[in-house]
Amino acid sequence: MTIKQALISVSDKTGVLEFAQGLAAQGVKLLSTGGTAKMLRDAGLTVTEIGDYTGFPEMLDGRVKTLHPKVHGGILARRDLPEHLATIEAHGIPTIDLVCVNLYPFAATIAKAGVTLEDAIENIDIGGPAMVRSSAKNYNGVAIVTDPEDYAPLLAEMKANAGALQLATRFNLAKKAFTHTARYDSMIANWLTGLDEGAEAKPAEAAPVPAIFPARLQLAFDRSEILRYGENSHQQAAFYRDTTALPGSIANYTQLQGKELSYNNIADSDAAWECVKAFDVPACVIIKHANPCGVAIDGSLLGAYEKAFKTDSTSAFGGIIAFNGEVGIDVVEAMNQRKHFVEVLIAPSFTAEAKAALAAKANLRVLVVPLGKDLNKLELKRVGGGLLVQTADDFTAQASGLKVVTKVQPTAQQIEDLLFAERVAKFVKSNAIVFCGGGMTLGVGAGQMSRVDSTKIASIKAQNAGLPLKGSVVASDAFFPFRDGLDVLAEAGATAVIQPGGSMRDEEVIAAADEHGIAMVFTGARHFRH
Amino acid sequence: MTIKQALISVSDKTGVLEFAQGLAAQGVKLLSTGGTAKMLRDAGLTVTEIGDYTGFPEMLDGRVKTLHPKVHGGILARRDLPEHLATIEAHGIPTIDLVCVNLYPFAATIAKAGVTLEDAIENIDIGGPAMVRSSAKNYNGVAIVTDPEDYAPLLAEMKANAGALQLATRFNLAKKAFTHTARYDSMIANWLTGLDEGAEAKPAEAAPVPAIFPARLQLAFDRSEILRYGENSHQQAAFYRDTTALPGSIANYTQLQGKELSYNNIADSDAAWECVKAFDVPACVIIKHANPCGVAIDGSLLGAYEKAFKTDSTSAFGGIIAFNGEVGIDVVEAMNQRKHFVEVLIAPSFTAEAKAALAAKANLRVLVVPLGKDLNKLELKRVGGGLLVQTADDFTAQASGLKVVTKVQPTAQQIEDLLFAERVAKFVKSNAIVFCGGGMTLGVGAGQMSRVDSTKIASIKAQNAGLPLKGSVVASDAFFPFRDGLDVLAEAGATAVIQPGGSMRDEEVIAAADEHGIAMVFTGARHFRH
Repeated sequence: MTIKQALISVSDKTGVLEFAQGLAAQGVKLLSTGGTAKMLRDAGLTVTEIGDYTGFPEMLDGRVKTLHPKVHGGILARRDLPEHLATIEAHGIPTIDLVCVNLYPFAATIAKAGVTLEDAIENIDIGGPAMVRSSAKNYNGVAIVTDPEDYAPLLAEMKANAGALQLATRFNLAKKAFTHTARYDSMIANWLTGLDEGAEAKPAEAAPVPAIFPARLQLAFDRSEILRYGENSHQQAAFYRDTTALPGSIANYTQLQGKELSYNNIADSDAAWECVKAFDVPACVIIKHANPCGVAIDGSLLGAYEKAFKTDSTSAFGGIIAFNGEVGIDVVEAMNQRKHFVEVLIAPSFTAEAKAALAAKANLRVLVVPLGKDLNKLELKRVGGGLLVQTADDFTAQASGLKVVTKVQPTAQQIEDLLFAERVAKFVKSNAIVFCGGGMTLGVGAGQMSRVDSTKIASIKAQNAGLPLKGSVVASDAFFPFRDGLDVLAEAGATAVIQPGGSMRDEEVIAAADEHGIAMVFTGARHFRH
Repeated sequence: MTIKQALISVSDKTGVLEFAQGLAAQGVKLLSTGGTAKMLRDAGLTVTEIGDYTGFPEMLDGRVKTLHPKVHGGILARRDLPEHLATIEAHGIPTIDLVCVNLYPFAATIAKAGVTLEDAIENIDIGGPAMVRSSAKNYNGVAIVTDPEDYAPLLAEMKANAGALQLATRFNLAKKAFTHTARYDSMIANWLTGLDEGAEAKPAEAAPVPAIFPARLQLAFDRSEILRYGENSHQQAAFYRDTTALPGSIANYTQLQGKELSYNNIADSDAAWECVKAFDVPACVIIKHANPCGVAIDGSLLGAYEKAFKTDSTSAFGGIIAFNGEVGIDVVEAMNQRKHFVEVLIAPSFTAEAKAALAAKANLRVLVVPLGKDLNKLELKRVGGGLLVQTADDFTAQASGLKVVTKVQPTAQQIEDLLFAERVAKFVKSNAIVFCGGGMTLGVGAGQMSRVDSTKIASIKAQNAGLPLKGSVVASDAFFPFRDGLDVLAEAGATAVIQPGGSMRDEEVIAAADEHGIAMVFTGARHFRH
């Protein structure tokens, strides 16, 4: 379909002059509005003002510019129906073959501090979306251009095709256009339905407070890949990314080598990455079935790896492993030496030597993820027919915030180990009990229905791994409901405990710790994770 | 703001005649289009055709009806700006104070079997959304009515206010309007970006195949409640429902009594409900920390409860309990007798007697959820910066699909127990090992990083509960990677095993079962759940 007449009306003027010049050079007549028209004309292009074209002036401060039958008739007439073409001809309406529109910046407006309701409302585009939608509906006869990134490729395609754009191109532009209007109105609806009660009646200068959880929630995602299958092979699955990239998150991965990622690979890689990025010193995390089966910090990544591997060497096989620093050849060699097979290896970077060594294992998935502490703004948990939405668990215990509740005070070394243990427990499925010592996990008790069972399991696992618990410290993701858990960990050899506190029986639990000569600190914050 | 002139143009004509009559009775002048105008005029109302009003005929098979400055100027002019009012007066444009519009049925169109691309595209409304958006933007001067449910209340409000609608009413209508257009275009974008490659180039009569996972995914939810807090008290949270209710899902709950639901209550109630609704005979499920700590079936709910409670009486306290039938006084009394404190009690119904007895426990949350086997069409798992999307795990093993792989054949009773165990294992976090017998769980090994650990834990928990495992059966949610798990469960007394099979070492595992004289069946389907 040859492009003869184009309508250009953009809010974001990036690249639009070059695009218009490129169109004009290919003999396309230009229609335009207000600011865009002036800009093009100043650059020497011949442009017809939409007002002159429709015979109706721009009015109401630009609120009504293009909402006219001469514009929409020229867009919407079906080129395959002679009666449509006859109708518009009878009304003196030529066809418009390409529409280049982008919308008033509603997102940028509401992102401004102190934006008023009037500002926001004024920045809701009306004419733009109408043209975008008209053009997209009639993709058989119109190319709808909403993204400056498309300007150059479209000009190139026209050049290569005697001024025409292919059907496939126009259809893809239409898909993009409806996605654009869907997300534009979704943003408006999210913002408006999240405003505080009575926002409409406040003084004009009042900045309304949008809620985290709007009454009507619209979410949007871009497909990154269709997966071979889901959590199990009889489930179909795909992976989507947020429309705005979150730096330092697993969705931002680059795969250096290896087999394609599976659903479970991505889920476990996320757990590994979120845990390892929580540490400010060289750290290694090994994940199996969504739970850490080994976490350690050390002066070097090699040291961290060697310690993390020791916690549960059996489970470490076939796990997902993440580092928070540049992985060198020493780490790769240490893994090879142990014949440590992992599904996925993740780090912010790899040395050239490490990369070369890894390349020998063609199947091993190696991911690069940029370091960054950002957390999701909204966490989502699906339930039958609904969705639980919450803010991220952004609490991390600090030495200054700890409350010692026992007669015995923890030593400086114990406090360091306790803070490490707390940071790990946050990433273990509840009920979580984690024995630690010397900057490594010694026993991880995960996912149990009773806290005392998690404590027993953690202790048994340390025994099985041959890791002595004498002098160890323990983190619990939530308070101890009874003293029984304390008794178990004391018997195992622990000498210090970190937990949120807050049980009805805190007194009983503190008394048990005192009885055992254990130091115990409260953080005040629970870390349930299910 | 007094309503003097209304524009009515609806695709769904439900209740619109009565609404128009109500408006006319309050002295409102009516503008309308095509079919709507005819219907109102046939009923004796005085209606101005939009074509007569704009001086521009409806054309292009209705594609361009209302996209005219006389319509949009009359809607968009700011009533607070004298220059706006002067402008429209100069152009002979009276204000339009109420716009009643609903859109072409795109959803119903694409839901039809064999819908063609042309059909779908033709059912994308252009003029409607433009009017909805214009009116919503100018809510200060216009009431935008998109939902027939609002007709009666709006007429009532006008009657009570001398023909005027309040600002708050108009603002709420505008929120609804933008939500409406957001979701309309979201549906279009989901459908279009999910079409098979090259759909636009296929013959007109070809029915394109929309994908489960569109390239651009838009999801929409309605807030049901803002929760006190999230998974932990330092996290904020809200609960949302799907825009189309899923019968038989936790989101469809009705709360009969008790404290408000917490984030964790809803998550655990979902786990309990999805598990219990999987059974076709009277069943009881007790959930703690997202895992079943007791599941049983019996001839009666009382029997099922008594058995489920036995599995792990300690963890059962403070749990969530669900039944798949009408709960009678016998069950309530049995719970009282055991002083069984639960956070939430769920069933499809309760007898009057049971309700009366439960009312005595003011804090106990009692939920009614309709029975139904429906599963979510899309399951969602949030990861950093992205979303894993998959279809539901809808596999349930049937006797006819089992493959006996051992020399020993399972008895009919064992097969019954194995199928029960498999159904439970599906709802236990991976790695899951479940010992069962006599229609109840005997030991649940949940959420471990190694399968042999889950097996050990399940066996230890049965011992602790005083439940003998001699003659028991075992379900594993995934294959045994080594024979060690088999050895543990055989030693514990199990005599039959159900598992998907598919390990590289199936031979070794089958040999172990044969060695122990155990019957083993393969289902072919894994049930990972993380």
